[in-house]
Amino acid sequence: MPYLEPIDPVIVQAEPLRRWTADLLERIGTPPEIAADVAEVLVAADLRGIASHGTARLPSYVALVEAGVLEPAARPARVGGRGAIALFDAGNGWGHHAGRVAMDDCIDRATETGVAVSVVRNTNHYGIAGWYAMRALAKRMIGVSLTNASPLIAPTRARVPMIGTNPIAVAVPAGRHGGIVLDMATSTVSRGQVEVAGRRGDTLRADWAIAPDGSPARTVEEALAGALQPLGGDEQGRGYKGYGLALVVDLLSGLLPGASYGPHILGLFSTEGPSELGHFFMAIDPAAVGDAAEFEGRAEEYIDLLAAAPTIPGAPGPVLYPGQLEAERAERNARSGIPIDREHHAGLVALGERLGVPFGT
Amino acid sequence: MPYLEPIDPVIVQAEPLRRWTADLLERIGTPPEIAADVAEVLVAADLRGIASHGTARLPSYVALVEAGVLEPAARPARVGGRGAIALFDAGNGWGHHAGRVAMDDCIDRATETGVAVSVVRNTNHYGIAGWYAMRALAKRMIGVSLTNASPLIAPTRARVPMIGTNPIAVAVPAGRHGGIVLDMATSTVSRGQVEVAGRRGDTLRADWAIAPDGSPARTVEEALAGALQPLGGDEQGRGYKGYGLALVVDLLSGLLPGASYGPHILGLFSTEGPSELGHFFMAIDPAAVGDAAEFEGRAEEYIDLLAAAPTIPGAPGPVLYPGQLEAERAERNARSGIPIDREHHAGLVALGERLGVPFGT
Repeated sequence: MPYLEPIDPVIVQAEPLRRWTADLLERIGTPPEIAADVAEVLVAADLRGIASHGTARLPSYVALVEAGVLEPAARPARVGGRGAIALFDAGNGWGHHAGRVAMDDCIDRATETGVAVSVVRNTNHYGIAGWYAMRALAKRMIGVSLTNASPLIAPTRARVPMIGTNPIAVAVPAGRHGGIVLDMATSTVSRGQVEVAGRRGDTLRADWAIAPDGSPARTVEEALAGALQPLGGDEQGRGYKGYGLALVVDLLSGLLPGASYGPHILGLFSTEGPSELGHFFMAIDPAAVGDAAEFEGRAEEYIDLLAAAPTIPGAPGPVLYPGQLEAERAERNARSGIPIDREHHAGLVALGERLGVPFGT
Repeated sequence: MPYLEPIDPVIVQAEPLRRWTADLLERIGTPPEIAADVAEVLVAADLRGIASHGTARLPSYVALVEAGVLEPAARPARVGGRGAIALFDAGNGWGHHAGRVAMDDCIDRATETGVAVSVVRNTNHYGIAGWYAMRALAKRMIGVSLTNASPLIAPTRARVPMIGTNPIAVAVPAGRHGGIVLDMATSTVSRGQVEVAGRRGDTLRADWAIAPDGSPARTVEEALAGALQPLGGDEQGRGYKGYGLALVVDLLSGLLPGASYGPHILGLFSTEGPSELGHFFMAIDPAAVGDAAEFEGRAEEYIDLLAAAPTIPGAPGPVLYPGQLEAERAERNARSGIPIDREHHAGLVALGERLGVPFGT
């Protein structure tokens, strides 16, 4: 819901953008089938309107490869596990590829085991968490995707950032509605949203971020030099719930597979060294405990009840289900092109020129 | 953290309270081994300082049995499942017993399968979600416990309550620190906390509840007649994240096992009919993907880093990990008795008198 449309955008078509992204990634040493996964996930973010996690990040990703801190040709390998849980080592390769492989693996296994988990270590930024959870929808399964990230959140009472904005993504098949897709950071807002508010001259809310001295950040500069607040804000606002969720995501996606965690994580886009992130994926097959069609029928009915609810005064529209706006935007953007902002576009053009893969649009 | 000590309390000892509770439950037709589970969970809540979910609820539970809407002698039966997931039907019996059985079952199975899930339908209120997650700690496993509940939260933009305060509980073994135990409702605050604020004359925060007309509730009366806000508060405060979490808990614990859900749920303590709740439990064995002692060592170190963090001005103490205060209080209360408020005490005395099981203290 917080994703704003760019002002004065350039319109690019999804399919050429995906092809160009894959070509560019191949040019820097990524094997074609790995490049295809990375391009798919990045363009999916652009389609869904989550520009901060899409192709706008390509210059940062390329810098990681050029600095030698991300191995573009690495392939994830299964290195452990038992029964319904598997451990993968991503070989410090693309997180998007390792994530796709590990998620698909647990979806396949869940056909037998009803529930299955994959955890991944030695991996990198994987883009939007929701994409992996949504892989389960095609098999009419529930998907879960968690990852840790650069320390940006200050735990409740702390003055410094120590935990990532570690997202929680869950996708649930919902019949004619497609899927319910929750994909949320465990901070109140992202750094990107702080920056946007600053550019628009909006005041920062007290539950968004703290300044370096620990007081609520009033300016973008204070916020970016300080730390984000966990979901809920300060202790009075029950921000310890958001902090607890962020910590649990780190325990499952970072500590469990033996990845880095918390304040030990280098910036995701730091060229100082590998980020050593971890991911956690789970698939649950509703058919293992009942009739899958009846399950989806109940999910459909739930959505219908929510959509028909009486609304508060001044509501900007009806009650939405998680992922509804993103799905509608993806459908529109697939049809009529993805609006990207001028800075994003200029970044892609410059990158294409430098690497000899001209950006077409 | 939000659990306040009662003012002018009566001190009761845990062991006699547990025995009396079990005797009382047996008197109304609960078999001894089921009564032992219910008493254990209720007294655990009192020990941890979560009075709203402990023996203070006994009059309400007894009313359910006396009204014939909860079967005190029902035993949960495994009625489905495949591989690492099992489905239980609780036979409309005690949620505490069904929860203990289903959680222990998935812990046992996780020894083989690494990860295992139990879902339960046709069940009732099970007390504190965290108790079941914590069962995994004794086996050095990660435990997860989710349940749905009476509709009290208004989804973002809605004017009426439609979703429970559906809690998320996760327990992670942490070496010498015992365990990290997140146990949180997905609303900003509980109805009980609204009532307490009212009795103390505190103003209600705008992110706590809405009045029946959909505006922020300013008085306890408005709040109780209206609906709770999801974690985060309104749409500007990112309350749709709390709403999304509450919904996902309902999809996993309610829809997946075929239980009731959302606005269809009767009040948990309504004597009009069975509550038909659902639960979801999961156990993950860290030893299935690595060295369990190393995993716990990392959790210990994480806690140490958090505890040593520099704090914000005016912080009431150091950074805490989830469940730390509750564990400290449980240890103290086990040693020197549980302080309960006068109303709670009078309720137990009256109940004991009426049922011929005198309350000793």
